[in-house]
Amino acid sequence: MRHLPIVVFAAALIAGPAIAQTPSLAAGAAAARDKALSDTTAWDVVESLTTEIGPRPVGSPAMQRARDWGVATLKRLGFENVHVENFTTNAWSRGPESAEVVAPFAQKLAILGIGGSSPTPAGGITAPIVVFTSYQALLDQPVGALTGKIAVVTQAMGRTQDGSSYGVVGVQRRNGAVEAAKRGAVAYLARSLSTDDTRLPHTGAGTPAGIPMAALSTVDAQLLERMAGRGKPVSVHLEMASSVNPAAEAWNVVGEIRGRAKPDEVIVVGGHLDSWDPGTGAVDDGAGVAIQTAAAKLAGEAAGRPRRTIRVVMWGSEEQNGSGAAYAAAHKTEADKIIIAGESDGGSGRIWSVATPPAANGHPAMVAFRAALPPLKATVNSTPPRSGGSDIAGLMGLKVPFVDFNQDMSRYFDLHHSADDTLDKIDPAELAQNVAVWAAFLYVAANSDVDFRPKPAAP
Amino acid sequence: MRHLPIVVFAAALIAGPAIAQTPSLAAGAAAARDKALSDTTAWDVVESLTTEIGPRPVGSPAMQRARDWGVATLKRLGFENVHVENFTTNAWSRGPESAEVVAPFAQKLAILGIGGSSPTPAGGITAPIVVFTSYQALLDQPVGALTGKIAVVTQAMGRTQDGSSYGVVGVQRRNGAVEAAKRGAVAYLARSLSTDDTRLPHTGAGTPAGIPMAALSTVDAQLLERMAGRGKPVSVHLEMASSVNPAAEAWNVVGEIRGRAKPDEVIVVGGHLDSWDPGTGAVDDGAGVAIQTAAAKLAGEAAGRPRRTIRVVMWGSEEQNGSGAAYAAAHKTEADKIIIAGESDGGSGRIWSVATPPAANGHPAMVAFRAALPPLKATVNSTPPRSGGSDIAGLMGLKVPFVDFNQDMSRYFDLHHSADDTLDKIDPAELAQNVAVWAAFLYVAANSDVDFRPKPAAP
Repeated sequence: MRHLPIVVFAAALIAGPAIAQTPSLAAGAAAARDKALSDTTAWDVVESLTTEIGPRPVGSPAMQRARDWGVATLKRLGFENVHVENFTTNAWSRGPESAEVVAPFAQKLAILGIGGSSPTPAGGITAPIVVFTSYQALLDQPVGALTGKIAVVTQAMGRTQDGSSYGVVGVQRRNGAVEAAKRGAVAYLARSLSTDDTRLPHTGAGTPAGIPMAALSTVDAQLLERMAGRGKPVSVHLEMASSVNPAAEAWNVVGEIRGRAKPDEVIVVGGHLDSWDPGTGAVDDGAGVAIQTAAAKLAGEAAGRPRRTIRVVMWGSEEQNGSGAAYAAAHKTEADKIIIAGESDGGSGRIWSVATPPAANGHPAMVAFRAALPPLKATVNSTPPRSGGSDIAGLMGLKVPFVDFNQDMSRYFDLHHSADDTLDKIDPAELAQNVAVWAAFLYVAANSDVDFRPKPAAP
Repeated sequence: MRHLPIVVFAAALIAGPAIAQTPSLAAGAAAARDKALSDTTAWDVVESLTTEIGPRPVGSPAMQRARDWGVATLKRLGFENVHVENFTTNAWSRGPESAEVVAPFAQKLAILGIGGSSPTPAGGITAPIVVFTSYQALLDQPVGALTGKIAVVTQAMGRTQDGSSYGVVGVQRRNGAVEAAKRGAVAYLARSLSTDDTRLPHTGAGTPAGIPMAALSTVDAQLLERMAGRGKPVSVHLEMASSVNPAAEAWNVVGEIRGRAKPDEVIVVGGHLDSWDPGTGAVDDGAGVAIQTAAAKLAGEAAGRPRRTIRVVMWGSEEQNGSGAAYAAAHKTEADKIIIAGESDGGSGRIWSVATPPAANGHPAMVAFRAALPPLKATVNSTPPRSGGSDIAGLMGLKVPFVDFNQDMSRYFDLHHSADDTLDKIDPAELAQNVAVWAAFLYVAANSDVDFRPKPAAP
């Protein structure tokens, strides 16, 4: 068996480049995959980020520390061309917040302001609430119907494997205050986009509406439903402070494994370094940063220096937007050299399906990648990638091809944007499987000439 | 079939009282049980208490409202002799609290002061922490070893069906600060007595030690372990305010279903009306109040007015002690007329085993009770009752017999003393099963002459 690799290599030389890549690509992808399953790099990265930095909203001192942590981490792991790309963005910051029912049943409520909320006047506001158990019921109100009221939407979010319920119900956080304000409301409260039953609210960004807006824990949303269901007016006192920096300094942190043959052909992958403030940004998105950093390192190590460049980006302002657009603007002229872009921003769960651009389906690199998947129990989608991610959306707008690797998000929205987004929620085995899929993919994409762009139609 | 009850009754008259009770006791116990399984009284009671009152620590205005709620609820449900028994007790009240790591990795910590804690000086204290991953490791420290330090104990609590791990690990909350202070510590932090992984700390009572003491969420306990594990000094800033009223007004709220034949023979059951402040006191102990109120009502209704009196007590200061002792002191002269005492203070889970005083095992009432259990999937312990409960401990000291009905506490310590102790955590079917066991028991105890006291030894 000793000479077999040489025989294969010789055969490959004779058969030409496309076929030549197949055996070594398959073997390399399998090696990267298998190494990933026992490697602790991803765990170590997210453990370090959550322990040593913790929550890191854009515009905060912690995000500055996270930037330095990102540079140090990439350098320590052997990445090259490690640098920081500056931009500025709008940054909303939470101040003290409280809410309580004052009548008829005095009780404190657990809330978190929604990013973009206006503060209340000093001393807060007290107003009767109107509870809508569906978002549509709010939309059904005529203009003026909520004058002087606090609008409350309590629609529940269902648990889904792919997280799709976030897209369905998410509008009640993202745009509910705008709709409430249009109808005269003085403040807006929405049931958290949460699939858990803890009394921890889940924050996130919303469209500024000129009124205070906050997320209720699922428990408190149910409490207000029950109180309102008794038929007596329910009055809530709300005090919220916040500030906005319209031009906060921010950074995308970048590291590369430079390609040996085609260093200007770049595979761009990453996660976002910023997080919301209540948790430690473990599943959102310390995990994504860790997965891509580890996968790139493992793919780079599996066969010496890769043919193309693998670039890891730790985007610096995903939660409040800005980093994806800044990245695309800074790399516009390079866009046609970006082979593929990928983003990991769905937690630390197992990848259960992959979608890659169909144009490359027959290429030996993709054959090799798909061959690496069965032991990882990941299936291959028959449909093209659709989502990409918010930090690569700018690149997608420049027609850069992208992949969707779908993670199990069953528990993600138990944790997302809440104080429960912490390291202990990450399963190391699930994290390793996720890294393994990415490592196999990065290996074949960086060690081949695969082209994901649609081919021109025949003349 | 129409005449069968009369035939049975005639036979019973001939056979004498002990045998006479058996058929009707069995039928009555079964009827009370079956009614309980579809009755919503218990759910309605705990829904009302948690929605309309919410958290109700002893000494708080909410506890005054809870007292009035208790009186109104018992009257509404048809109880007689509804009244309030006053006493005074020591009441600790929480003020603003915060904790954060200041070096080497600045992060906020989720804490809740332990009841009995001293406040910090204004401006708080900042000190290095010493982390002990077991309580024994703290005890192993010599006097003076912790001078100027914040002692942190992070021992984890295991999940058990009977809640017994609370007894094992509980000392780290109850007495840890005393042991830390003895060794020179300036403050004490303990991992919450929690079986869940949310970032919500669990409070509870501790022995005052003259230093601030607080519970860390399980997540934050792990965070401090990881920080300390890096080998650099970790420094924490702690600010805690609190106040103590050594003679707070408090109340046990009482209602009865008066017996028709032996009204001065009393069965005393209840739960505690007070709660800790972070949640709404749903499983601890709104559920217990609801279970006993509903079970007494159902037992009383199952065969018209019972032979003996069933008394429900909503004890008014269990969490910070006082109500059990006050009750025993006020009812000392009546103790020999109290047939049996029972307390429900373990949440809303199913009863999986019952223990009744062995002296009555052969009595037809107990035969009938045990015959009612198989459909409820509750087993009968071979050992005598041991625990009773803290609110009946005073009666137990007066040699009043007591029962232990063991509830499934598997999830109880996910919720107990935390913000997560809310109505949505109660499963109505489990609650109904619990009521059914108690209703069957109350029926047979109140409609027979069963005597639970040990019989004098033969001369």
